Amino acid sequence: MTKEEVLLKMSKKKEQAILLVHSPDRPGLVRAITDFIFSYGGNIQALQYCVDMDDMVVFIRAKWSMEGFAFSRQETEEVFREKVAEKFDMKFRIFFTGNIPRMAIFVSKFPHCLSDIVYRLRVKEWDVEVPLIISNHPDLKPIADRYDMRFEQFRDVKENKEEVEARQLELLAEHKVDFIVLARYMQILTNNFVSQYPNRIINIHNSFLPAFPGAQPYQSAYKRGVKIIGATSHYVTEELDSGPIIEQDVIRVNYEDSVDDLIRKGQDLEKLVLSSAIWSHINRELLVYKGRTIVFNK
Amino acid sequence: MTKEEVLLKMSKKKEQAILLVHSPDRPGLVRAITDFIFSYGGNIQALQYCVDMDDMVVFIRAKWSMEGFAFSRQETEEVFREKVAEKFDMKFRIFFTGNIPRMAIFVSKFPHCLSDIVYRLRVKEWDVEVPLIISNHPDLKPIADRYDMRFEQFRDVKENKEEVEARQLELLAEHKVDFIVLARYMQILTNNFVSQYPNRIINIHNSFLPAFPGAQPYQSAYKRGVKIIGATSHYVTEELDSGPIIEQDVIRVNYEDSVDDLIRKGQDLEKLVLSSAIWSHINRELLVYKGRTIVFNK
Amino acid sequence: MTKEEVLLKMSKKKEQAILLVHSPDRPGLVRAITDFIFSYGGNIQALQYCVDMDDMVVFIRAKWSMEGFAFSRQETEEVFREKVAEKFDMKFRIFFTGNIPRMAIFVSKFPHCLSDIVYRLRVKEWDVEVPLIISNHPDLKPIADRYDMRFEQFRDVKENKEEVEARQLELLAEHKVDFIVLARYMQILTNNFVSQYPNRIINIHNSFLPAFPGAQPYQSAYKRGVKIIGATSHYVTEELDSGPIIEQDVIRVNYEDSVDDLIRKGQDLEKLVLSSAIWSHINRELLVYKGRTIVFNK
Amino acid sequence: MTKEEVLLKMSKKKEQAILLVHSPDRPGLVRAITDFIFSYGGNIQALQYCVDMDDMVVFIRAKWSMEGFAFSRQETEEVFREKVAEKFDMKFRIFFTGNIPRMAIFVSKFPHCLSDIVYRLRVKEWDVEVPLIISNHPDLKPIADRYDMRFEQFRDVKENKEEVEARQLELLAEHKVDFIVLARYMQILTNNFVSQYPNRIINIHNSFLPAFPGAQPYQSAYKRGVKIIGATSHYVTEELDSGPIIEQDVIRVNYEDSVDDLIRKGQDLEKLVLSSAIWSHINRELLVYKGRTIVFNK
Repeated sequence: MTKEEVLLKMSKKKEQAILLVHSPDRPGLVRAITDFIFSYGGNIQALQYCVDMDDMVVFIRAKWSMEGFAFSRQETEEVFREKVAEKFDMKFRIFFTGNIPRMAIFVSKFPHCLSDIVYRLRVKEWDVEVPLIISNHPDLKPIADRYDMRFEQFRDVKENKEEVEARQLELLAEHKVDFIVLARYMQILTNNFVSQYPNRIINIHNSFLPAFPGAQPYQSAYKRGVKIIGATSHYVTEELDSGPIIEQDVIRVNYEDSVDDLIRKGQDLEKLVLSSAIWSHINRELLVYKGRTIVFNK
Repeated sequence: MTKEEVLLKMSKKKEQAILLVHSPDRPGLVRAITDFIFSYGGNIQALQYCVDMDDMVVFIRAKWSMEGFAFSRQETEEVFREKVAEKFDMKFRIFFTGNIPRMAIFVSKFPHCLSDIVYRLRVKEWDVEVPLIISNHPDLKPIADRYDMRFEQFRDVKENKEEVEARQLELLAEHKVDFIVLARYMQILTNNFVSQYPNRIINIHNSFLPAFPGAQPYQSAYKRGVKIIGATSHYVTEELDSGPIIEQDVIRVNYEDSVDDLIRKGQDLEKLVLSSAIWSHINRELLVYKGRTIVFNK
Repeated sequence: MTKEEVLLKMSKKKEQAILLVHSPDRPGLVRAITDFIFSYGGNIQALQYCVDMDDMVVFIRAKWSMEGFAFSRQETEEVFREKVAEKFDMKFRIFFTGNIPRMAIFVSKFPHCLSDIVYRLRVKEWDVEVPLIISNHPDLKPIADRYDMRFEQFRDVKENKEEVEARQLELLAEHKVDFIVLARYMQILTNNFVSQYPNRIINIHNSFLPAFPGAQPYQSAYKRGVKIIGATSHYVTEELDSGPIIEQDVIRVNYEDSVDDLIRKGQDLEKLVLSSAIWSHINRELLVYKGRTIVFNK
Repeated sequence: MTKEEVLLKMSKKKEQAILLVHSPDRPGLVRAITDFIFSYGGNIQALQYCVDMDDMVVFIRAKWSMEGFAFSRQETEEVFREKVAEKFDMKFRIFFTGNIPRMAIFVSKFPHCLSDIVYRLRVKEWDVEVPLIISNHPDLKPIADRYDMRFEQFRDVKENKEEVEARQLELLAEHKVDFIVLARYMQILTNNFVSQYPNRIINIHNSFLPAFPGAQPYQSAYKRGVKIIGATSHYVTEELDSGPIIEQDVIRVNYEDSVDDLIRKGQDLEKLVLSSAIWSHINRELLVYKGRTIVFNK
């Protein structure tokens, strides 16, 4: 093994807790959090705290080692709620790196995002389980088969949307799916479906939102003559292409680029932006507040 | 003088002609152009040609040395029209580097773009004359005074728009202004005004268009939670913020950035993007076709 | 099929010729080229011409449709040499899109670049054949097997370098390989080997060259505290990491990024930069002059 | 006043303390810091904490409001040292936003960085005083004069380096200068001089370090054929162009760009990178550890 490989492999081995908080800004809040972690034997490994001065709201991310910590996962949450969160009227979530998140992937016909995700799964770049791939077309089944991943194809998705979604929701529950990635799924989910996974459905849109929402963004970008194209990954909400943005990136285009070239360059962007968003989600690097994400590692 | 200075100074000294063409794609068209240049003694220094495959339209930029060329500026245009352009049904323009373009600057209260432009004028980065600065406020007059530039302030621009514009147009004509730069002018020009300077009014908008047109783009960008902000320079057309885009650029923002930080970072973008667009315009690096620019040097 | 798919598929179907030239700057040179193309029935689709003012050397790329052209591939080259190139003392090469280039891939243990290349082959992003993958380790054989690609493993490459290379060269000749991609091969080729494929071996180096040549660039970048990391694809020459650069790209790192994070971010860069360089090579978008590349599409 | 202006102006008004720490990683360290701030009445406004896992060293930046804080500036430092720092063997510094830092600017002949800095001073982008500009040439005196800034010209700097530096150090002491900005000063300072202002002399180098250190980086970059050029701002140390990097940025160049174009594009980079580094320094956003900077706001 080369040094690079060793470094890639030895990492994140020991259990850690990650706390995400947003809260009204009150004196003593950070002290209370650090006191909680220290008093019960946790060693802080990362801490970020910032204030939204307009709303006087604070955002916090703290990570500590659970090695030698006084409580189990469940107790940690309960004790934190009782001893800290309730006093400060905080909204909080605590995650534990030992709880590997379970991700479902929804695809249609475009292979680029799914291929990129599958590559990262294969080289163990992410600590995530993928029990299920769902599609409305058979085209990408060979990719799933190659790695013995379960692939469920649904027909007539547009015509029988409610019925199809009901079966999909059953499957997701059955496989204990924590969050969903729409890897160019090309279907609009119903509000009912979306409401079951709030801030837990990640979409990739092939433009720099809020520019060019909806269909055919590369064609629109070409026609508008933009000099830079983009891709945007966001949580899905009821309003199309309007959910909290997790990650965006862009690339220059030039006078010789046709719509084909925009698509080719853009697809490379799409897969990187989607994978970067998944990374932030899995590593609990972000929280959502008033329709925006606070991403602590970017 | 250092080597860098020498290099900066010795450049573009000898007269050159720059030809910009868009035309239906017809056999022999490039040959006819290169033949014209060569036959009359011009030495080609740059040539770019590309085809829009959807419309079967070609775009061409050619630059040649006028040293030893058979014709004067005016004759060159006439002979080209007769011998080449008419045969191929071309739209063309020929510019000569010895004809220094005359630029008017419209400003309001923000100093950043004007300061950046004035710096570039002072160090002779651009071959351009600025006979006139027009403003609806007195705030930036000291900048103009410092360099003995003519500064005309117009009051009550909003209330008497037509009357004010009539006087402005007179001034522009009197000073033989070729093109106008709106360096954060903060006023909307009437269609009548715009129609007098087609593709000759350059605006800077403080967002990545078509995202966040209109007022308060930084506030909107913050509220939408974008991860990257941008600036866009475009030719002004009748429809607000919808003219042909000349240049765009972007910069990442992060979770700690407030609206203030977006403004601070964005203003640096605005001035660079505007100056880059002016550079392309002055150096005749672009043409407009169907609401888009073809920028040959990017 | 979606519109995006249709656009991706219908492209580059008809045979085209691509001419690359560098030459002393002489009057009439472009005219002679465009005349040659037009006279024999070619329709120009792209043309770029620029002058290196220091050396008074011109660089040209021209592309034309062979449909209805008077000559076969071989004749085209011969007639061009005789009628144009010799008069102007040009160095030139003519490529034809119907001649699909044959690429060998050399790998070691890192899968990221090979996986990315294999994906692009699978979706037919590139017009290229890959008859052969060569490796000094068995690790990546499963990737080759999955797509029925020939995978040749060589043992003891370091110890028996000359013998191993002799056998490799035989294999390359046998498979009519046109150019070689070192997709993180981790071995230094001998000068003898390199000299057989001048400007036809493409390497990816995991730093922004000339910064951090040689081994362990991510560790060096971390230690030096750079704020941006990069990747560089270049043609291999006798001097390590010093060949003509084809493509580079960069990404920001921040204070929380460990060497692991640099490797993770960097590997995404490496594969995109390498694939972009392969694209330019395959599409004959570049030429080499005095140790630099002139890349016409960037 | 527009909304943008109001936002720009109302900011950073109330006194804040900024604590920068690096320390061996010991349990309870963050708790001790937050406890100190809270116990004495400070309200935390920002906090960032990260661990270098290789060295087991932690880096911390904390900012709190001094309004209602129990101690004066001087006491704050003493009490923190006694109650917190000594227990944990921390290296720390505390800054107060009310102590406006005093910056000297060293220039030579290039105006671009000085002009950019002067613009930012004029619009009050930075909370900084500039009592002194030092130069080895008279060329930029008019810029200083225009804003009534003190400009000291030293002749024969190369020949009488020690004597000149002795007088410069006197002037710096006399004007109570806190830190120095070399805005393309083009002279190498002696080790003696540098040692008087450790991590307090900010230089701008016109390349992406460690690529192209020393003289003529644009010429070298052109010759090497890089596809991206950069600029680097760093603290000056005894070894040329090897001090801790504060900020870097890059821009693409293309096949038409001459050395002149690299210089033109690069100078825009240089001024932005230098100003960004000054911003980080003034706002106490960074610390230096083992030859690297930890920059908390990027």
